[in-house]
Amino acid sequence: MYLSTISETDLRQLTVNDPFLGEYQRLVRNVVIPYQWEALNNRIPDAEPSHAIDNFRIAAGQQAGEFYGMVFQDSDVTKWLEAVAWSLCQQPDAELEKTADEVIDLLAAAQCEDGYLNTWYMLKEPGLRWTNLAECHELYCAGHLFEAAVAFYKATGKRTLLDIACRFADHIYTVFGPGENQLHGYPGHPEIELALMRLYEVTGNNDYLALANYFVEERGAQPHYYDIEYEKRGKTFHWGNWGEAWMIKDKAYTHAHKPMVEQDEAVGHAVRSVYLMTGIAHLARISGDESKRQTCLRIWNNMVQRRMYITGGIGSQGIGEAFTSDYDLPNDTAYSESCASIGLMMFARRMVEMEGDGQYADVMERALYNTVLGGMSMDGKHFFYVNPLETYPKAIPFNHIYEHVKPVRQRWFGCACCPPNIARTLVALGHYIFTPREDALLINLYVGNSLQVMVGGKPLDITISGNYPWDEQVTISINSPEPVEHTLALRIPGWCDALKVTLNGEVYCGAIDKGYLHIHRSWAAGDVITLQLPMPVRRVYGNPLVRHLAGKVALQRGPLVYCLEQADNGSELQTLSLDKGSEFVEVAGTGVMANKILIQAQGHRQTLDASQDKPLYQFDQPMTRSAPQTLTFIPWFSWANRGEGEMRIWVDEDC
Amino acid sequence: MYLSTISETDLRQLTVNDPFLGEYQRLVRNVVIPYQWEALNNRIPDAEPSHAIDNFRIAAGQQAGEFYGMVFQDSDVTKWLEAVAWSLCQQPDAELEKTADEVIDLLAAAQCEDGYLNTWYMLKEPGLRWTNLAECHELYCAGHLFEAAVAFYKATGKRTLLDIACRFADHIYTVFGPGENQLHGYPGHPEIELALMRLYEVTGNNDYLALANYFVEERGAQPHYYDIEYEKRGKTFHWGNWGEAWMIKDKAYTHAHKPMVEQDEAVGHAVRSVYLMTGIAHLARISGDESKRQTCLRIWNNMVQRRMYITGGIGSQGIGEAFTSDYDLPNDTAYSESCASIGLMMFARRMVEMEGDGQYADVMERALYNTVLGGMSMDGKHFFYVNPLETYPKAIPFNHIYEHVKPVRQRWFGCACCPPNIARTLVALGHYIFTPREDALLINLYVGNSLQVMVGGKPLDITISGNYPWDEQVTISINSPEPVEHTLALRIPGWCDALKVTLNGEVYCGAIDKGYLHIHRSWAAGDVITLQLPMPVRRVYGNPLVRHLAGKVALQRGPLVYCLEQADNGSELQTLSLDKGSEFVEVAGTGVMANKILIQAQGHRQTLDASQDKPLYQFDQPMTRSAPQTLTFIPWFSWANRGEGEMRIWVDEDC
Repeated sequence: MYLSTISETDLRQLTVNDPFLGEYQRLVRNVVIPYQWEALNNRIPDAEPSHAIDNFRIAAGQQAGEFYGMVFQDSDVTKWLEAVAWSLCQQPDAELEKTADEVIDLLAAAQCEDGYLNTWYMLKEPGLRWTNLAECHELYCAGHLFEAAVAFYKATGKRTLLDIACRFADHIYTVFGPGENQLHGYPGHPEIELALMRLYEVTGNNDYLALANYFVEERGAQPHYYDIEYEKRGKTFHWGNWGEAWMIKDKAYTHAHKPMVEQDEAVGHAVRSVYLMTGIAHLARISGDESKRQTCLRIWNNMVQRRMYITGGIGSQGIGEAFTSDYDLPNDTAYSESCASIGLMMFARRMVEMEGDGQYADVMERALYNTVLGGMSMDGKHFFYVNPLETYPKAIPFNHIYEHVKPVRQRWFGCACCPPNIARTLVALGHYIFTPREDALLINLYVGNSLQVMVGGKPLDITISGNYPWDEQVTISINSPEPVEHTLALRIPGWCDALKVTLNGEVYCGAIDKGYLHIHRSWAAGDVITLQLPMPVRRVYGNPLVRHLAGKVALQRGPLVYCLEQADNGSELQTLSLDKGSEFVEVAGTGVMANKILIQAQGHRQTLDASQDKPLYQFDQPMTRSAPQTLTFIPWFSWANRGEGEMRIWVDEDC
Repeated sequence: MYLSTISETDLRQLTVNDPFLGEYQRLVRNVVIPYQWEALNNRIPDAEPSHAIDNFRIAAGQQAGEFYGMVFQDSDVTKWLEAVAWSLCQQPDAELEKTADEVIDLLAAAQCEDGYLNTWYMLKEPGLRWTNLAECHELYCAGHLFEAAVAFYKATGKRTLLDIACRFADHIYTVFGPGENQLHGYPGHPEIELALMRLYEVTGNNDYLALANYFVEERGAQPHYYDIEYEKRGKTFHWGNWGEAWMIKDKAYTHAHKPMVEQDEAVGHAVRSVYLMTGIAHLARISGDESKRQTCLRIWNNMVQRRMYITGGIGSQGIGEAFTSDYDLPNDTAYSESCASIGLMMFARRMVEMEGDGQYADVMERALYNTVLGGMSMDGKHFFYVNPLETYPKAIPFNHIYEHVKPVRQRWFGCACCPPNIARTLVALGHYIFTPREDALLINLYVGNSLQVMVGGKPLDITISGNYPWDEQVTISINSPEPVEHTLALRIPGWCDALKVTLNGEVYCGAIDKGYLHIHRSWAAGDVITLQLPMPVRRVYGNPLVRHLAGKVALQRGPLVYCLEQADNGSELQTLSLDKGSEFVEVAGTGVMANKILIQAQGHRQTLDASQDKPLYQFDQPMTRSAPQTLTFIPWFSWANRGEGEMRIWVDEDC
């Protein structure tokens, strides 16, 4: 475990100018953040109202009315604030900052004397604070408030929101703990653990570290806290729509079925799982706790080696938004929530920090460039909550196994967790690109950007340029005013097996350690590293234990997973197969696919004899003729941007 | 449409001595009927109590207590009585008949003055009769009572139950109809329509024909009766477990979304659909109503050409036990209820009677020899309610898309519709084997039996012998005391394309009309027909529009669909493929598979390199070696008789 200090990349010192992801950041800045501000203020026509700002106004006594929304509605505001904060690092915006300051003042006005702040309980269930940790997201919302506070402080240096957060955290520290008069509980929806770790890093307040540790250690203890509070409040429950207290009974759903040290599988609600593990991994590194590290390794390995889609999606089923069992990865009924892949990126980031191993960055990249990007439409106004790997729209409305699946992105959600989550993640990419350690600067992602990072008091100015993941060449140049001795650790992607590196024009050969090429030298202005990361189109095959992938193949180029879409290939995609020996031709996309590389390859289509209406079943010979057809594959993240149609990633392979 | 008289085969004049299905009849007689009698009296250990007999005792004032069970609990008793009746035709049993007489006396004692009889409403909701036709099975239970009454009368000549039924039917005739003071309603669960047709045939009472016709004609009329009664009773609903009156709102679920003349798709609850269509087909023939006939043809064609599994199963989804959409036939999440295939046999029987076309008998045979037989275990004590075409037991408990699937047959059900339904069907096979028309005796199924049927006042004694569906030869011999001039119409199965027929030793060549070979002559004792029905193992391919069958093949021999089971082939069946050119070897089964023909063929297994724990996804080469393996296929109806394990019908085919 890597124990020496890791500093979080200072986003004020980082400018993303990536031709590809830079566009997404601009989209978040110019479309998503303003759009979501309109949404938070119920100004999106034909969309469910959010009422999230109103809730705070009512709590602050500035407006009459009643609470409206989910029990976690507050978090939509704080996730938006976090997105704004990281966006301000990227590009100052006085008006936006003023709007954010006003929202923060609103939060301050709404906060209780003792530091408590949650509009659901303040308005809807006064006096019932902390009575239903299992179901009611109180600590979850606190966590998102803390994350926003840390972000806003780091982005602007302003303490107002940070002070609000600390007052609330201090209050929570008095409420929860081993003391006789304290509650021995922990959140049904983890999030505060990872947020307390961030708050600890910014404030250095050990109480926050201790509180995070308490929540983790107490989890799953017997007698079970969820049962105790359930009895205490007279067996009421919040999620009654299933007619029973299922969320309290099904303790694996919240990963509280046993202590973390005894857990070894990724189970239950996928988002809860990765949020929890992100906090535990962070805590394990900071506290040097080997037992917590082992828990992270066990859960990670099960999740990534048995229960993760090729797209970096996790959570195989809609009911419970949950993991199922090893190798159970159905394509058309997948849940694969956008937020779960964001959480997987967060978990991966903390594993990279703890282990300094590129395999974690590989998963981070897989989730980012496939499911996370795919969660948002190219107009920035539509979002996928669920990300299937195969869709057949004609069948979706008529078969309940597809109940959770939408064939096109939706404008907004009653449960609006995903859109602001995608926004805050895309503007904070700098935290994932680099892992700045004392002994080395790990470069995890090849997103074009310029960064200044301090090394032993001296500025190291580094620029990454290229057009990743479309172009194979990435250039890393140094432009520090004075030489700086340091190690640059370049991640060699797991999908890349023929790396070429030059340093100042000379071929560079060095040892690759845990997936990173380490280059140590005194870096001076003008130093240039070039990486050649060959990106041939490659066929991917599934583990035979994944029964849904038998006989099928997927295409991947660099980190991008590709798919067939009806718009390019016609309908009934199941009748298409890819020839085993076919060559791949890279084609430049046009229209909405502009600046993207599409792939064409020789395949076949089973064609029904049109002369008659064929029966369902026929003897002896397939009731089809096979006709050659050029198949066109598009990057999966860009599907469903051309209207409703069939899509599939895994295609039958011809012999 | 065939309008001339059709008589139902008199089961007292028919003796099944088929080596194969005869065993099933013996099983029903010796195990199922006694077992179910125990069940109806709550004497099965570890099984949910039925309480169905107690309900009648309480209603008759012979016992204290409260109603317990489903709103259709009464039908378990009447379906059992029907099974007993047809079984008594097969083999007299004084003690069993005495037990049945006592149950019938109990029903008589329970029946109200005005003829009404339904223990749910008499005990649980007195005064609320006929207030919730959409949901509450009152007319459905009446229908099963009528069917039992007809059966018991035909089997024993005793009128007690028939009189109970007629009194109830007469009462219903006064309650429902176009009159001002009558209810303009119809059942949410069809059944009474087909039962009234049977009651009409036995009694000749035109009121019953008129009532059946009224229920069919009124169905789907606007303003909608379900809404009217819903308003009238203050918007209460029975199936509240979904938190809303879904069964009333979703009118397609009960096939009441529009008038029958406008319906052209098999939608909604599968059992309701085929029960309704059975009644309509019967009514259409008797009344010569071409418009109703066209409705039957439209619904049949959509059902059989777009929405039926190769096993004769119908209903693709668990929620709603319902049809989904054209070509949506998933194998592992199929519902395919046993009762739905029984209903499909009933619908097919009425279509044969109306159309005299073997294509309907082909479907009848497909449903009987696959799903219906598969619904019961070989010990006669365990039953499938749901009949998937593929199971992977390890995944079932963890993914909600499999919620309705059981990997092994269950002992009994809280909703116990299937077991008695299978029983009453298997002992009444004679009704499906023959269709006795004035101008010909249609032989639909080649089940070994002896029948005496009257032709123009003369007895035609006919015996069918062989060992169908295992042996290819079927012998039909005549042993009438005096010659009888008549036409025997021998069905040529759709799966058979190389028929050989001899008449008294001479090769017989005749015209095949609508799937039947018609042989007209003066039949005399000693006449012998032999049919040679070649049963090579044949590969079946799915229509390419069924996306779940792409690249896959199934095996069929005669009418039997085969499958791979873990017990013979090891686990991870998805790693097995059948070679395209492989020969098929027929093997005699042993143990529980005794007297069954198994099939062996050359295939391959993808074998994981055991030297390492493989990743989920791998580039460039399938992460497996392929090793030859002999595949063993068993008749699908016999799966899950050797404990829990994987099963699949559709197998990948190697090139």
